[in-house]
Amino acid sequence: MWLLYQFPLCPFSRKLRILLAEKGVGYEPRRESPWLRRDEFLQMNPAGQTPVMVNSERPAALPMIDSMAICEYFEETVDKASMLGGTSADRAEIRRLVTWFDTFFYRDITAPLLKERMEKRLVLRESPDAGRLREAMKAAVAHLDYTDYLLDNRKWIAGSTISLADLAAAAQISIADYLGGIDWKSHETTKRWYVGMKSRPSFRPLLAERMEVVSPHADYEKLDL
Amino acid sequence: MWLLYQFPLCPFSRKLRILLAEKGVGYEPRRESPWLRRDEFLQMNPAGQTPVMVNSERPAALPMIDSMAICEYFEETVDKASMLGGTSADRAEIRRLVTWFDTFFYRDITAPLLKERMEKRLVLRESPDAGRLREAMKAAVAHLDYTDYLLDNRKWIAGSTISLADLAAAAQISIADYLGGIDWKSHETTKRWYVGMKSRPSFRPLLAERMEVVSPHADYEKLDL
Ligand SMILES: N[C@@H](CCC(=O)N[C@@H](CS)C(=O)NCC(=O)O)C(=O)O
Ligand SMILES: N[C@@H](CCC(=O)N[C@@H](CS)C(=O)NCC(=O)O)C(=O)O
Repeated sequence: MWLLYQFPLCPFSRKLRILLAEKGVGYEPRRESPWLRRDEFLQMNPAGQTPVMVNSERPAALPMIDSMAICEYFEETVDKASMLGGTSADRAEIRRLVTWFDTFFYRDITAPLLKERMEKRLVLRESPDAGRLREAMKAAVAHLDYTDYLLDNRKWIAGSTISLADLAAAAQISIADYLGGIDWKSHETTKRWYVGMKSRPSFRPLLAERMEVVSPHADYEKLDL
Repeated sequence: MWLLYQFPLCPFSRKLRILLAEKGVGYEPRRESPWLRRDEFLQMNPAGQTPVMVNSERPAALPMIDSMAICEYFEETVDKASMLGGTSADRAEIRRLVTWFDTFFYRDITAPLLKERMEKRLVLRESPDAGRLREAMKAAVAHLDYTDYLLDNRKWIAGSTISLADLAAAAQISIADYLGGIDWKSHETTKRWYVGMKSRPSFRPLLAERMEVVSPHADYEKLDL
Protein backbone atom coordinates (compact mmCIF):
# COMPACT_ATOMS: atom_id res chain seq x y z
CA MET A 1 0.00 0.00 0.00
CA TRP A 2 1.21 3.47 -0.89
CA LEU A 3 1.15 5.97 1.97
CA LEU A 4 1.03 9.65 1.04
CA TYR A 5 2.07 12.22 3.64
CA GLN A 6 0.21 15.45 3.00
CA PHE A 7 -2.29 18.01 4.29
CA PRO A 8 -5.50 19.21 2.58
CA LEU A 9 -4.17 22.59 1.43
CA CYS A 10 -0.77 21.46 0.10
CA PRO A 11 -0.91 22.29 -3.64
CA PHE A 12 1.98 19.94 -4.50
CA SER A 13 0.23 17.00 -2.82
CA ARG A 14 -2.97 17.96 -4.62
CA LYS A 15 -1.29 17.87 -8.05
CA LEU A 16 0.07 14.41 -7.22
CA ARG A 17 -3.27 13.17 -5.87
CA ILE A 18 -5.07 14.23 -9.06
CA LEU A 19 -2.46 12.32 -11.06
CA LEU A 20 -2.84 9.21 -8.88
CA ALA A 21 -6.62 9.34 -9.27
CA GLU A 22 -6.35 9.75 -13.06
CA LYS A 23 -4.06 6.73 -13.18
CA GLY A 24 -6.15 4.69 -10.75
CA VAL A 25 -3.32 4.28 -8.24
CA GLY A 26 -4.66 3.68 -4.74
CA TYR A 27 -3.02 5.21 -1.68
CA GLU A 28 -3.71 5.97 1.94
CA PRO A 29 -3.40 9.68 2.78
CA ARG A 30 -1.51 10.32 6.01
CA ARG A 31 -1.96 13.73 7.56
CA GLU A 32 1.35 15.57 7.92
CA SER A 33 1.69 19.21 8.99
CA PRO A 34 5.18 20.19 7.84
CA TRP A 35 5.19 23.27 10.09
CA LEU A 36 5.31 20.96 13.13
CA ARG A 37 8.66 19.62 11.92
CA ARG A 38 7.97 16.21 13.38
CA ASP A 39 11.16 14.22 13.98
CA GLU A 40 9.99 11.03 12.24
CA PHE A 41 8.96 13.08 9.21
CA LEU A 42 12.30 14.90 9.04
CA GLN A 43 14.02 11.50 9.13
CA MET A 44 12.07 10.52 6.03
CA ASN A 45 12.52 13.84 4.28
CA PRO A 46 15.36 16.10 5.42
CA ALA A 47 13.71 18.92 3.44
CA GLY A 48 10.72 18.64 5.80
CA GLN A 49 8.22 19.14 2.97
CA THR A 50 5.05 17.43 1.82
CA PRO A 51 4.33 15.37 -0.25
CA VAL A 52 6.29 12.24 0.64
CA MET A 53 5.27 8.76 -0.53
CA VAL A 54 6.36 5.44 0.88
CA ASN A 55 5.37 1.90 0.04
CA SER A 56 4.39 0.12 3.25
CA GLU A 57 5.22 -3.26 1.71
CA ARG A 58 8.76 -2.21 0.88
CA PRO A 59 10.09 -0.73 4.13
CA ALA A 60 13.69 -0.86 2.89
CA ALA A 61 12.96 1.31 -0.17
CA LEU A 62 13.81 5.00 -0.03
CA PRO A 63 10.88 7.34 0.59
CA MET A 64 9.87 9.24 -2.54
CA ILE A 65 10.23 12.99 -2.18
CA ASP A 66 9.35 16.03 -4.27
CA SER A 67 6.05 16.10 -6.11
CA MET A 68 7.58 16.26 -9.59
CA ALA A 69 9.99 13.40 -8.91
CA ILE A 70 7.03 11.33 -7.64
CA CYS A 71 4.86 12.27 -10.64
CA GLU A 72 7.67 11.24 -13.00
CA TYR A 73 7.86 7.89 -11.15
CA PHE A 74 4.18 7.16 -11.74
CA GLU A 75 4.41 8.38 -15.34
CA GLU A 76 7.19 5.83 -15.85
CA THR A 77 5.53 2.95 -14.04
CA VAL A 78 1.80 3.33 -14.87
CA ASP A 79 0.79 3.63 -18.53
CA LYS A 80 -2.82 4.66 -17.92
CA ALA A 81 -3.69 8.33 -18.41
CA SER A 82 -0.31 9.63 -19.53
CA MET A 83 0.14 13.23 -18.45
CA LEU A 84 3.53 13.65 -20.12
CA GLY A 85 2.56 12.76 -23.64
CA GLY A 86 3.78 13.88 -27.05
CA THR A 87 7.28 14.44 -28.37
CA SER A 88 10.28 15.25 -26.19
CA ALA A 89 9.81 18.91 -27.13
CA ASP A 90 6.14 18.72 -26.02
CA ARG A 91 7.31 17.18 -22.75
CA ALA A 92 9.82 20.00 -22.25
CA GLU A 93 6.96 22.50 -22.55
CA ILE A 94 4.86 20.50 -20.07
CA ARG A 95 7.74 20.38 -17.57
CA ARG A 96 8.45 24.11 -18.02
CA LEU A 97 4.87 24.93 -17.11
CA VAL A 98 4.73 22.55 -14.14
CA THR A 99 7.77 24.39 -12.82
CA TRP A 100 6.16 27.72 -13.66
CA PHE A 101 3.10 27.01 -11.48
CA ASP A 102 4.99 25.16 -8.75
CA THR A 103 7.56 27.93 -8.50
CA PHE A 104 6.07 31.30 -9.44
CA PHE A 105 2.35 30.84 -8.86
CA TYR A 106 3.21 29.20 -5.54
CA ARG A 107 5.73 31.88 -4.54
CA ASP A 108 3.56 34.87 -5.53
CA ILE A 109 0.09 33.62 -4.63
CA THR A 110 -0.42 30.25 -2.93
CA ALA A 111 2.43 30.56 -0.42
CA PRO A 112 1.53 34.06 0.84
CA LEU A 113 -2.17 33.08 1.04
CA LEU A 114 -1.30 29.94 3.02
CA LYS A 115 0.89 32.02 5.28
CA GLU A 116 -1.65 34.78 5.90
CA ARG A 117 -4.84 32.74 6.02
CA MET A 118 -3.72 29.34 7.33
CA GLU A 119 -0.42 29.51 9.19
CA LYS A 120 -1.18 32.77 10.96
CA ARG A 121 -4.45 31.30 12.21
CA LEU A 122 -3.24 27.80 12.97
CA VAL A 123 0.30 28.33 14.18
CA LEU A 124 1.17 31.94 14.82
CA ARG A 125 -2.25 33.08 16.09
CA GLU A 126 -1.89 36.45 14.40
CA SER A 127 -4.30 38.17 12.05
CA PRO A 128 -3.54 38.25 8.33
CA ASP A 129 -1.67 41.19 6.81
CA ALA A 130 -4.16 42.96 4.52
CA GLY A 131 -1.38 44.41 2.35
CA ARG A 132 0.12 40.99 1.67
CA LEU A 133 -3.30 39.56 0.81
CA ARG A 134 -3.90 42.39 -1.65
CA GLU A 135 -0.50 41.77 -3.27
CA ALA A 136 -1.22 38.05 -3.66
CA MET A 137 -4.59 38.80 -5.24
CA LYS A 138 -2.97 41.27 -7.61
CA ALA A 139 -0.39 38.65 -8.56
CA ALA A 140 -3.24 36.19 -9.18
CA VAL A 141 -4.74 38.56 -11.76
CA ALA A 142 -1.42 38.69 -13.64
CA HIS A 143 -1.09 34.91 -13.49
CA LEU A 144 -4.61 34.33 -14.78
CA ASP A 145 -3.89 36.76 -17.61
CA TYR A 146 -1.08 34.38 -18.54
CA THR A 147 -3.27 31.24 -18.34
CA ASP A 148 -5.90 33.09 -20.43
CA TYR A 149 -3.19 33.79 -23.00
CA LEU A 150 -2.03 30.15 -23.01
CA LEU A 151 -5.58 28.80 -23.28
CA ASP A 152 -6.47 31.25 -26.04
CA ASN A 153 -3.71 29.64 -28.08
CA ARG A 154 -3.97 25.99 -27.04
CA LYS A 155 -6.67 23.56 -25.96
CA TRP A 156 -4.89 22.76 -22.70
CA ILE A 157 -2.25 24.61 -20.67
CA ALA A 158 0.79 23.03 -22.36
CA GLY A 159 -0.60 21.97 -25.72
CA SER A 160 -3.30 19.94 -27.46
CA THR A 161 -3.79 17.34 -24.71
CA ILE A 162 -4.28 17.44 -20.98
CA SER A 163 -0.98 17.13 -19.09
CA LEU A 164 0.75 17.51 -15.75
CA ALA A 165 0.81 21.25 -16.46
CA ASP A 166 -3.00 21.36 -16.21
CA LEU A 167 -2.84 19.37 -12.97
CA ALA A 168 -0.17 21.68 -11.52
CA ALA A 169 -2.09 24.80 -12.54
CA ALA A 170 -5.45 23.51 -11.27
CA ALA A 171 -3.88 22.41 -7.97
CA GLN A 172 -2.32 25.82 -7.29
CA ILE A 173 -5.38 27.74 -8.47
CA SER A 174 -7.74 25.61 -6.37
CA ILE A 175 -5.81 26.24 -3.14
CA ALA A 176 -5.66 29.96 -3.92
CA ASP A 177 -9.40 29.83 -4.66
CA TYR A 178 -10.13 27.98 -1.39
CA LEU A 179 -8.36 30.83 0.39
CA GLY A 180 -10.35 33.50 -1.45
CA GLY A 181 -7.43 34.72 -3.56
CA ILE A 182 -9.01 34.38 -7.00
CA ASP A 183 -11.32 36.92 -8.58
CA TRP A 184 -12.95 35.12 -11.52
CA LYS A 185 -14.20 38.31 -13.16
CA SER A 186 -12.64 38.97 -16.56
CA HIS A 187 -10.89 35.60 -16.78
CA GLU A 188 -13.51 33.75 -18.79
CA THR A 189 -11.10 31.48 -20.65
CA THR A 190 -9.32 30.23 -17.55
CA LYS A 191 -12.62 29.92 -15.73
CA ARG A 192 -14.07 27.65 -18.41
CA TRP A 193 -10.97 25.46 -18.33
CA TYR A 194 -11.01 25.39 -14.51
CA VAL A 195 -14.68 24.34 -14.34
CA GLY A 196 -13.71 21.47 -16.66
CA MET A 197 -10.86 20.49 -14.35
CA LYS A 198 -13.14 20.66 -11.29
CA SER A 199 -15.65 18.35 -12.97
CA ARG A 200 -13.14 15.54 -13.42
CA PRO A 201 -13.74 12.52 -11.17
CA SER A 202 -10.05 12.73 -10.18
CA PHE A 203 -10.50 16.23 -8.79
CA ARG A 204 -14.05 16.41 -7.36
CA PRO A 205 -13.39 14.44 -4.15
CA LEU A 206 -10.49 16.72 -3.25
CA LEU A 207 -12.77 19.74 -3.42
CA ALA A 208 -14.89 18.25 -0.63
CA GLU A 209 -11.96 18.17 1.80
CA ARG A 210 -11.66 20.84 4.44
CA MET A 211 -8.77 22.20 6.44
CA GLU A 212 -9.61 22.62 10.12
CA VAL A 213 -10.13 26.24 11.23
CA VAL A 214 -9.88 27.59 7.66
CA SER A 215 -13.10 27.49 5.63
CA PRO A 216 -13.21 27.88 1.86
CA HIS A 217 -14.89 30.89 0.26
CA ALA A 218 -18.50 30.46 -0.80
CA ASP A 219 -18.19 29.44 -4.50
CA TYR A 220 -15.20 27.17 -4.06
CA GLU A 221 -16.92 23.87 -4.95
CA LYS A 222 -19.39 25.28 -7.49
CA LEU A 223 -19.31 24.20 -11.12
CA ASP A 224 -21.36 27.18 -12.36
CA LEU A 225 -19.11 30.05 -11.27
CA MET B 1 22.76 24.76 -33.96
CA TRP B 2 21.68 24.91 -30.32
CA LEU B 3 21.99 28.32 -28.71
CA LEU B 4 22.28 28.42 -24.92
CA TYR B 5 21.47 31.66 -23.12
CA GLN B 6 23.47 31.80 -19.89
CA PHE B 7 26.13 33.61 -17.90
CA PRO B 8 29.33 32.13 -16.42
CA LEU B 9 28.15 32.01 -12.79
CA CYS B 10 24.64 30.61 -13.38
CA PRO B 11 24.68 27.23 -11.57
CA PHE B 12 21.64 25.91 -13.49
CA SER B 13 23.30 26.65 -16.84
CA ARG B 14 26.46 25.00 -15.54
CA LYS B 15 24.65 21.76 -14.64
CA LEU B 16 23.15 21.70 -18.13
CA ARG B 17 26.47 22.49 -19.82
CA ILE B 18 28.20 19.61 -18.01
CA LEU B 19 25.41 17.32 -19.20
CA LEU B 20 25.70 18.55 -22.79
CA ALA B 21 29.47 18.00 -22.72
CA GLU B 22 29.07 14.48 -21.28
CA LYS B 23 26.63 13.68 -24.07
CA GLY B 24 28.69 15.33 -26.78
CA VAL B 25 25.95 17.81 -27.73
CA GLY B 26 27.41 20.95 -29.30
CA TYR B 27 25.99 24.39 -28.59
CA GLU B 28 26.85 28.03 -28.88
CA PRO B 29 26.75 29.86 -25.55
CA ARG B 30 25.02 33.25 -25.72
CA ARG B 31 25.72 35.63 -22.89
CA GLU B 32 22.54 36.64 -21.08
CA SER B 33 22.43 38.68 -17.86
CA PRO B 34 18.94 38.02 -16.46
CA TRP B 35 19.19 41.01 -14.12
CA LEU B 36 19.08 43.32 -17.16
CA ARG B 37 15.59 41.96 -17.99
CA ARG B 38 16.17 42.42 -21.70
CA ASP B 39 12.91 42.63 -23.65
CA GLU B 40 13.85 40.04 -26.27
CA PHE B 41 14.86 37.63 -23.53
CA LEU B 42 11.61 38.13 -21.60
CA GLN B 43 9.74 37.39 -24.83
CA MET B 44 11.51 34.04 -25.01
CA ASN B 45 11.15 33.27 -21.32
CA PRO B 46 8.48 35.14 -19.34
CA ALA B 47 10.20 33.89 -16.15
CA GLY B 48 13.27 35.92 -17.18
CA GLN B 49 15.68 33.21 -16.03
CA THR B 50 18.71 31.47 -17.48
CA PRO B 51 19.23 28.90 -18.93
CA VAL B 52 17.15 29.00 -22.11
CA MET B 53 17.93 26.88 -25.16
CA VAL B 54 16.75 27.41 -28.71
CA ASN B 55 17.51 25.61 -31.93
CA SER B 56 18.52 28.18 -34.53
CA GLU B 57 17.45 25.82 -37.34
CA ARG B 58 13.92 25.49 -35.94
CA PRO B 59 12.82 29.09 -35.37
CA ALA B 60 9.15 28.05 -35.02
CA ALA B 61 9.88 25.64 -32.14
CA LEU B 62 9.22 26.82 -28.59
CA PRO B 63 12.30 27.89 -26.63
CA MET B 64 13.28 25.33 -23.99
CA ILE B 65 13.13 26.71 -20.47
CA ASP B 66 14.09 25.47 -17.00
CA SER B 67 17.33 23.55 -16.57
CA MET B 68 15.67 20.32 -15.41
CA ALA B 69 13.13 20.34 -18.25
CA ILE B 70 16.02 20.84 -20.70
CA CYS B 71 18.13 18.10 -19.08
CA GLU B 72 15.17 15.69 -19.31
CA TYR B 73 14.87 16.58 -23.01
CA PHE B 74 18.48 15.64 -23.72
CA GLU B 75 18.18 12.50 -21.57
CA GLU B 76 15.25 11.46 -23.75
CA THR B 77 16.82 12.34 -27.08
CA VAL B 78 20.51 11.46 -26.64
CA ASP B 79 21.41 7.97 -25.38
CA LYS B 80 25.09 8.63 -24.71
CA ALA B 81 26.12 9.10 -21.07
CA SER B 82 22.77 8.56 -19.39
CA MET B 83 22.58 10.60 -16.21
CA LEU B 84 19.14 9.28 -15.21
CA GLY B 85 19.96 5.58 -15.14
CA GLY B 86 18.63 2.67 -13.11
CA THR B 87 15.09 1.76 -12.06
CA SER B 88 12.25 4.24 -11.77
CA ALA B 89 12.87 4.30 -8.00
CA ASP B 90 16.56 5.12 -8.64
CA ARG B 91 15.44 7.90 -10.95
CA ALA B 92 13.11 9.28 -8.28
CA GLU B 93 16.08 9.52 -5.90
CA ILE B 94 18.17 11.25 -8.59
CA ARG B 95 15.39 13.76 -9.27
CA ARG B 96 14.86 14.37 -5.54
CA LEU B 97 18.51 15.28 -5.15
CA VAL B 98 18.66 17.48 -8.23
CA THR B 99 15.76 19.43 -6.70
CA TRP B 100 17.51 19.42 -3.33
CA PHE B 101 20.62 21.15 -4.73
CA ASP B 102 18.75 23.39 -7.19
CA THR B 103 16.34 24.52 -4.48
CA PHE B 104 17.96 24.45 -1.05
CA PHE B 105 21.67 24.67 -1.81
CA TYR B 106 20.85 27.48 -4.24
CA ARG B 107 18.52 29.29 -1.84
CA ASP B 108 20.79 29.03 1.21
CA ILE B 109 24.25 29.36 -0.36
CA THR B 110 24.64 30.06 -4.08
CA ALA B 111 21.91 32.72 -4.37
CA PRO B 112 23.05 34.83 -1.38
CA LEU B 113 26.69 34.55 -2.52
CA LEU B 114 25.74 35.66 -6.04
CA LYS B 115 23.75 38.52 -4.58
CA GLU B 116 26.46 39.71 -2.19
CA ARG B 117 29.56 39.11 -4.32
CA MET B 118 28.30 39.51 -7.89
CA GLU B 119 25.07 41.53 -8.09
CA LYS B 120 26.08 44.07 -5.48
CA ARG B 121 29.31 44.69 -7.37
CA LEU B 122 27.96 44.56 -10.88
CA VAL B 123 24.51 46.06 -10.57
CA LEU B 124 23.85 47.69 -7.24
CA ARG B 125 27.37 49.05 -6.62
CA GLU B 126 27.13 48.33 -2.90
CA SER B 127 29.52 46.41 -0.70
CA PRO B 128 28.62 42.89 0.42
CA ASP B 129 26.85 42.32 3.72
CA ALA B 130 29.32 40.46 5.96
CA GLY B 131 26.54 38.92 8.05
CA ARG B 132 24.84 37.41 5.01
CA LEU B 133 28.13 36.02 3.72
CA ARG B 134 28.77 34.38 7.10
CA GLU B 135 25.30 32.83 7.09
CA ALA B 136 25.80 31.43 3.58
CA MET B 137 29.15 29.93 4.60
CA LYS B 138 27.56 28.38 7.69
CA ALA B 139 24.81 26.92 5.52
CA ALA B 140 27.50 25.50 3.22
CA VAL B 141 29.01 23.58 6.14
CA ALA B 142 25.63 21.98 6.91
CA HIS B 143 25.11 21.13 3.24
CA LEU B 144 28.55 19.55 2.89
CA ASP B 145 27.84 17.51 6.02
CA TYR B 146 24.88 16.12 4.10
CA THR B 147 26.90 15.36 0.94
CA ASP B 148 29.53 13.71 3.17
CA TYR B 149 26.78 11.56 4.65
CA LEU B 150 25.42 10.65 1.21
CA LEU B 151 28.89 9.83 -0.16
CA ASP B 152 29.78 7.78 2.91
CA ASN B 153 26.87 5.52 2.03
CA ARG B 154 27.00 5.54 -1.79
CA LYS B 155 29.59 5.79 -4.50
CA TRP B 156 27.92 8.82 -6.09
CA ILE B 157 25.45 11.40 -4.76
CA ALA B 158 22.27 9.52 -5.70
CA GLY B 159 23.48 5.91 -5.88
CA SER B 160 25.99 3.55 -7.44
CA THR B 161 26.47 5.47 -10.71
CA ILE B 162 27.09 9.07 -11.64
CA SER B 163 23.87 10.96 -12.32
CA LEU B 164 22.30 14.37 -12.81
CA ALA B 165 22.40 14.70 -9.01
CA ASP B 166 26.22 14.77 -9.13
CA LEU B 167 26.08 17.35 -11.91
CA ALA B 168 23.60 19.52 -9.98
CA ALA B 169 25.64 19.27 -6.78
CA ALA B 170 28.97 19.98 -8.50
CA ALA B 171 27.48 22.92 -10.38
CA GLN B 172 26.12 24.59 -7.24
CA ILE B 173 29.25 23.81 -5.20
CA SER B 174 31.57 25.12 -7.91
CA ILE B 175 29.80 28.49 -8.10
CA ALA B 176 29.81 28.75 -4.30
CA ASP B 177 33.50 27.83 -4.38
CA TYR B 178 34.28 30.44 -7.06
CA LEU B 179 32.73 33.00 -4.74
CA GLY B 180 34.79 31.86 -1.74
CA GLY B 181 31.85 30.30 0.11
CA ILE B 182 33.25 26.81 0.65
CA ASP B 183 35.62 25.85 3.43
CA TRP B 184 37.03 22.45 2.43
CA LYS B 185 38.37 21.66 5.91
CA SER B 186 36.73 18.62 7.53
CA HIS B 187 34.79 17.63 4.42
CA GLU B 188 37.24 15.06 3.06
CA THR B 189 34.63 12.79 1.48
CA THR B 190 32.91 15.52 -0.49
CA LYS B 191 36.28 17.03 -1.40
CA ARG B 192 37.50 13.75 -2.92
CA TRP B 193 34.30 13.42 -4.92
CA TYR B 194 34.48 17.06 -6.04
CA VAL B 195 38.10 16.75 -7.23
CA GLY B 196 36.88 13.79 -9.31
CA MET B 197 34.10 15.90 -10.78
CA LYS B 198 36.50 18.77 -11.52
CA SER B 199 38.80 16.40 -13.41
CA ARG B 200 36.13 15.35 -15.89
CA PRO B 201 36.66 16.66 -19.43
CA SER B 202 33.04 17.87 -19.32
CA PHE B 203 33.74 20.12 -16.36
CA ARG B 204 37.32 21.37 -16.73
CA PRO B 205 36.70 23.95 -19.47
CA LEU B 206 33.95 25.59 -17.40
CA LEU B 207 36.40 26.13 -14.55
CA ALA B 208 38.54 28.28 -16.82
CA GLU B 209 35.70 30.75 -17.45
CA ARG B 210 35.64 34.04 -15.60
CA MET B 211 32.92 36.49 -14.70
CA GLU B 212 33.92 40.09 -15.35
CA VAL B 213 34.71 42.09 -12.20
CA VAL B 214 34.35 39.04 -9.90
CA SER B 215 37.50 36.89 -9.56
CA PRO B 216 37.46 33.36 -8.18
CA HIS B 217 39.21 32.54 -4.94
CA ALA B 218 42.79 31.21 -5.17
CA ASP B 219 42.27 27.40 -5.16
CA TYR B 220 39.17 27.37 -7.33
CA GLU B 221 40.67 25.53 -10.31
CA LYS B 222 43.15 23.35 -8.38
CA LEU B 223 42.82 19.57 -8.44
CA ASP B 224 44.96 19.06 -5.30
CA LEU B 225 42.93 20.98 -2.73
N1 LIG C 1 9.40 21.04 -4.49
C1 LIG C 1 8.52 20.51 -3.49
C2 LIG C 1 7.81 21.62 -2.72
C3 LIG C 1 6.96 21.11 -1.59
C4 LIG C 1 6.53 22.21 -0.61
O1 LIG C 1 6.98 23.36 -0.68
N2 LIG C 1 5.66 21.83 0.35
C5 LIG C 1 5.20 22.74 1.38
C6 LIG C 1 3.76 22.50 1.75
S1 LIG C 1 2.68 23.08 0.50
C7 LIG C 1 6.00 22.48 2.64
O2 LIG C 1 6.13 21.34 3.05
N3 LIG C 1 6.54 23.56 3.27
C8 LIG C 1 7.24 23.45 4.51
C9 LIG C 1 8.68 23.91 4.36
O3 LIG C 1 9.14 24.25 3.26
O4 LIG C 1 9.36 23.92 5.40
C10 LIG C 1 7.52 19.58 -4.15
O5 LIG C 1 7.14 19.85 -5.30
O6 LIG C 1 7.13 18.56 -3.54
N1 LIG D 1 14.34 26.60 -12.13
C1 LIG D 1 15.22 27.39 -12.94
C2 LIG D 1 16.02 28.37 -12.10
C3 LIG D 1 16.87 29.29 -12.94
C4 LIG D 1 17.40 30.52 -12.18
O1 LIG D 1 17.03 30.77 -11.02
N2 LIG D 1 18.30 31.27 -12.84
C5 LIG D 1 18.82 32.50 -12.25
C6 LIG D 1 20.29 32.71 -12.64
S1 LIG D 1 21.36 31.58 -11.81
C7 LIG D 1 18.07 33.68 -12.82
O2 LIG D 1 17.89 33.78 -14.02
N3 LIG D 1 17.63 34.60 -11.95
C8 LIG D 1 16.96 35.80 -12.35
C9 LIG D 1 15.55 35.88 -11.82
O3 LIG D 1 15.08 34.91 -11.15
O4 LIG D 1 14.92 36.92 -12.05
C10 LIG D 1 16.15 26.45 -13.70
O5 LIG D 1 16.49 25.38 -13.16
O6 LIG D 1 16.50 26.74 -14.85
